[in-house]
Amino acid sequence: MRTFFYPESMVVVGASPRKKNLGHLIILNNVRLDCKVRLYGLSSEEGEIAGIHVYKDFPSLPEIPDVALFITPAAAIPDLLEECGKRGIRHVVIESSGFSEFSRDENDALEEKILKIAERYGIRFVGPNCIGIVNYDLNLVMPFLLYKKSLPGGRVGMISQSGGLGHIYLETLPENAVRPGKMVSVGNKLQIDETDFLQYFLEDEATDMVVVYLEGFKRGRDFFRTALSASKPIILQKSNRNPLSASIARSHTAALSASDDVVDGFCRQAAVIRVEDEQEAISAVKILQQPLMRGRRLAVLSRSGGHAVITADACSQYGFDLVPFPESFFERLNTLYTRRVIAPQNPLDLGEIFDYRIYARIMEEALKLDEVDGVLFNHVYQSHYESDMSKTFLGELDSLVRKYNKPAAVAVITDAAETLELMKSFPVYTSPLAAVKALNLSATYAERKELRDARGEGNALSFALPELQGRLAGFIEEKRHPLADECIDLLRTAGLSFVRSIKINQASDLEAGAVSFPVAVKLLSSQASHKSDVGGVRLNLPDRDALAQALSAIRSSVSEHAPGVSVEGFLVQEMAPEGQEFFVGGRQDPVFGPVVVAGLGGIFLEIFRDSAVRIAPVTPNEARDMLRGLHAWPILQGRRGQAPRDVEALTDLICRVAALLVDAPQIAEIDLNPVFVHAAGRGISLADARILMSLKD
Amino acid sequence: MRTFFYPESMVVVGASPRKKNLGHLIILNNVRLDCKVRLYGLSSEEGEIAGIHVYKDFPSLPEIPDVALFITPAAAIPDLLEECGKRGIRHVVIESSGFSEFSRDENDALEEKILKIAERYGIRFVGPNCIGIVNYDLNLVMPFLLYKKSLPGGRVGMISQSGGLGHIYLETLPENAVRPGKMVSVGNKLQIDETDFLQYFLEDEATDMVVVYLEGFKRGRDFFRTALSASKPIILQKSNRNPLSASIARSHTAALSASDDVVDGFCRQAAVIRVEDEQEAISAVKILQQPLMRGRRLAVLSRSGGHAVITADACSQYGFDLVPFPESFFERLNTLYTRRVIAPQNPLDLGEIFDYRIYARIMEEALKLDEVDGVLFNHVYQSHYESDMSKTFLGELDSLVRKYNKPAAVAVITDAAETLELMKSFPVYTSPLAAVKALNLSATYAERKELRDARGEGNALSFALPELQGRLAGFIEEKRHPLADECIDLLRTAGLSFVRSIKINQASDLEAGAVSFPVAVKLLSSQASHKSDVGGVRLNLPDRDALAQALSAIRSSVSEHAPGVSVEGFLVQEMAPEGQEFFVGGRQDPVFGPVVVAGLGGIFLEIFRDSAVRIAPVTPNEARDMLRGLHAWPILQGRRGQAPRDVEALTDLICRVAALLVDAPQIAEIDLNPVFVHAAGRGISLADARILMSLKD
Repeated sequence: MRTFFYPESMVVVGASPRKKNLGHLIILNNVRLDCKVRLYGLSSEEGEIAGIHVYKDFPSLPEIPDVALFITPAAAIPDLLEECGKRGIRHVVIESSGFSEFSRDENDALEEKILKIAERYGIRFVGPNCIGIVNYDLNLVMPFLLYKKSLPGGRVGMISQSGGLGHIYLETLPENAVRPGKMVSVGNKLQIDETDFLQYFLEDEATDMVVVYLEGFKRGRDFFRTALSASKPIILQKSNRNPLSASIARSHTAALSASDDVVDGFCRQAAVIRVEDEQEAISAVKILQQPLMRGRRLAVLSRSGGHAVITADACSQYGFDLVPFPESFFERLNTLYTRRVIAPQNPLDLGEIFDYRIYARIMEEALKLDEVDGVLFNHVYQSHYESDMSKTFLGELDSLVRKYNKPAAVAVITDAAETLELMKSFPVYTSPLAAVKALNLSATYAERKELRDARGEGNALSFALPELQGRLAGFIEEKRHPLADECIDLLRTAGLSFVRSIKINQASDLEAGAVSFPVAVKLLSSQASHKSDVGGVRLNLPDRDALAQALSAIRSSVSEHAPGVSVEGFLVQEMAPEGQEFFVGGRQDPVFGPVVVAGLGGIFLEIFRDSAVRIAPVTPNEARDMLRGLHAWPILQGRRGQAPRDVEALTDLICRVAALLVDAPQIAEIDLNPVFVHAAGRGISLADARILMSLKD
Repeated sequence: MRTFFYPESMVVVGASPRKKNLGHLIILNNVRLDCKVRLYGLSSEEGEIAGIHVYKDFPSLPEIPDVALFITPAAAIPDLLEECGKRGIRHVVIESSGFSEFSRDENDALEEKILKIAERYGIRFVGPNCIGIVNYDLNLVMPFLLYKKSLPGGRVGMISQSGGLGHIYLETLPENAVRPGKMVSVGNKLQIDETDFLQYFLEDEATDMVVVYLEGFKRGRDFFRTALSASKPIILQKSNRNPLSASIARSHTAALSASDDVVDGFCRQAAVIRVEDEQEAISAVKILQQPLMRGRRLAVLSRSGGHAVITADACSQYGFDLVPFPESFFERLNTLYTRRVIAPQNPLDLGEIFDYRIYARIMEEALKLDEVDGVLFNHVYQSHYESDMSKTFLGELDSLVRKYNKPAAVAVITDAAETLELMKSFPVYTSPLAAVKALNLSATYAERKELRDARGEGNALSFALPELQGRLAGFIEEKRHPLADECIDLLRTAGLSFVRSIKINQASDLEAGAVSFPVAVKLLSSQASHKSDVGGVRLNLPDRDALAQALSAIRSSVSEHAPGVSVEGFLVQEMAPEGQEFFVGGRQDPVFGPVVVAGLGGIFLEIFRDSAVRIAPVTPNEARDMLRGLHAWPILQGRRGQAPRDVEALTDLICRVAALLVDAPQIAEIDLNPVFVHAAGRGISLADARILMSLKD
């Protein structure tokens, strides 16, 4: 991979010496920026572009270049790639478009062909349909867009599925006091994908953090695994969040959409910083260049009272604790200025003080405090008059941040031109809210990283795996999904406990004492997935007579309302003791593989969607974090004097379901709903289970 | 009020001719800006400031000025005001600080004194603790901050509780292609408050919309009433949203905090546009200078595929409908360009077209469409090279927007300096998300305004008001809150129906046939507000024996767990038929007066806080809108084949509770929880009611 970013030589295939085509522009860019790579052009016509020789064919090149960049019509690619293979070129960047992003059917064959040629020769290639790679360490710019100025290489790596977005990031970061180092546009990622580049950037010693823009994941599970062990921050902007966008993304780059909830879940699990838009991404980069906010105790200093109020609102919204300053802090402050006393509170309104040296000293005193994890400064000022003082102050602040190893976010409130100028040199924010959001990103990242690194191991789950696999194979063979009673049997093999359940055909099948009344009875039928819709469920039957009546009631309901539904028996179950209704389930996600879901059950499930998703398997710590993230978490903790619920039992269930989906990929979907969660120590009760098999048609 | 904004003459009291004090600066500002008001200074020392004469005392002034501006120590104000009164000055702006915002106790007396003097002479005054008024129509700038350039007067009015925020708005709006017209900083609003100025701006012919920054409401209910009949958009930034901020706001300006939910509720009710921060406020002003978005059908045109995907995400998030373009649209497009066919979808990716004239034509075709309520354009471009073309295009767009009476939001994605330059002349946005949010503000305002204007009249509620008032007077006299049975009796008088309820002292008190079993029984005690906490509630008692047992069980529970609680009887109630649990309640809000609340009941009330608040009284339409705004609305509509619930009955209940709180301010709080909502046509059932009286200690 390193060769793509640090080639010694590169040929631009499709750079016409005469026409001002895209290849021509690429060579011009690199010459103008004084790129430290030996460059060659290649086109049907020999010539020169700004001193770079354009050769007619590969054999004429004076050396075997490390990288070949293709910017030719799509149809020409297979032959060119073949040629590269023969000549020993092993790194290719295909920027040409006109592949699966354009029209799926006709171009799939073309992509297939290219993949095969590359495989034959051991060629690694980026693209197609991309703008390639930028590495400011060498001033190497492969995109066919205009690059005007060279930059000292920074330490931020960028992976972008959209060339346009990637380019905009490169342009915007320097305007925000951030120096980008490298960027790769992955395009259709036919061969090398975002996970490959993520791995590279995580290992690259010149990269401190990675910004990723994606419309879809090529290998979601691998991306997740790579992120899970990352020591550098990964900032992810994932668009294409819903079916509406998905159709556009398809035509844009060939993107595979994943359920947005799963992306949220895996980001929380792997401590990936998911951002909503470009502006939030840039804020994240800015704040993460400073030390992390390792707690939520914030000190706010404000040059304007109104902005102090707004900041306090934002702090409350984002869960920051405006700790009271200790007495000693104000004592030290009193040695700094004498004329006026400022009200001893946090936020500290500096309104009466006009002295930048004092600001710096107060900032230092605040950063010093053990009680404080980070500082926010509202810098309201008159442009021009205070410009130089501001810059000196911000420079000092930068050293203080390093010295005390805590972040300081400065909200600059002045005119736009001044702000713009200041932002180029200092990582400042344009409003108190933006500064609070940035600090929240830092604090959240620190929290999640700690959780992730303490995720621990999966617990030892007792699975009768061979027996389970045998039964699952049976359903696959019969090409059918298990019935309710079979689901229960299956899951018992996986160590799950259900209420006592007995399959009968008629009331007299039930042996005396086999169950304790009251019971529920449920129709067993392969045609009725929602039993209650056909009147196939009766609850709270107090005795045998009631059971017999219920059976005939179900039979008549079915024959009346759903005559096509076969009655394949009945499941008699003891009623579960009362408990809070949750649900646990999971499925094989097409992008991320097995995922597990848990949340509040009952009729509110659909209304509030209070649930959490994680990529399976999950450790008990991760399962607990799923529950902690629910709005319903207070219910589990016990509220209004009610007993806390059995979180451990629920956690164990989540881990088991997750493990099962990993071990048994034949299971497409599991749904346990309701799960009655009893008081702590009393466990959970399961009565219903639904399993769908992965049946190929 | 007009005199404050359009005085013919003004004296600045406290403007020293020698010292560069704040009064001095105010005169300098106005001279520099060529203010069209005759100016005088007044200070203990005679002299001149930039050609303006400073007089030693009021009698020396050559005329009675329309307005006197005070910028002197607080202690001097009463005498100065007295002087103004005697000399016939009737309009005063007090910018001096050092009043209740500084220290409550000692300065309340000072404020009281000032109010009395003003009243005696019929003086109207702004402040204290403010930066006064700005009117660009006259280039009149009262603030003691530096004003550098004059501006042509615009049509946006500003009311700000914080001088700092107001000033920043004035500086920032012109950087966003918005010309502010007038601004007033209300400070401690001791006499004239935000509602007075709101009324003025709503009537002022030179003002098209009003931006309000508040930390608290002086007369919340009047503000609401004024907003309710406003034909101009009102944009409200309300900070000081929580107790944390409240303590700072207190020290900042003397702000009265209102429950933030009530503010949200009244904004929805009165179609006030509530914004989160300054940036959102400016976006609102920008989009509302265009025609309103009168629907949610959006056309998106994008010069970059990646930004099209991001825009589609944002559209889905904010509830916009990316309608398919009609066939005829593409037919017309095909007459505009021939070389390439662009994919016929919405968002339309313009990636292949590079011709600004064509962009303008496509925009026109999109704005023309009956199927479309507004257009969004993603303008990704290279600065410098396309600058002039961009400006021409944006100018044309401006005319198209007027011509077709629909909004067009342009997201500009280019370098920051170029963006900044462009923003001064055109109302553009810096990202697709920001553009979508702006369009959402416009659409939401249009929707709420329509709802508000169609709120209709309250229904005729049959209240036995005199009887009710008599009973309430009894509780006030006895200085106590009604017990559960008394609450039910009270509310029956107000037309509410409860399940059959009978008060007894022992089981034998219950006459045969008086209630149908099963019943519930509840302890009546003035000491037990939460009956269930002392074991005072038993449900589902099947017969008399069970009832008798329950009574003795309650008695022993109370004597064991809460020996201080007196047993004042029991309430026997028929069990309510099953229904979905909601709650309805209300209270006298210290800022907004009577408010009504409704939402989902049961144990999830505290978890999801799924409720809506409105200022009482409410019309049936408003009550229905409360329910429509709940997450639980689908439950009321009937989900998964369940019957829809009796929304009409619930609506009627909300209206009645609201009306009751208006008619009976002696009631501090009403709580009806649970309200069982049955299937449509079957009404609701009430079993429990709690009423707290307004008891003065």
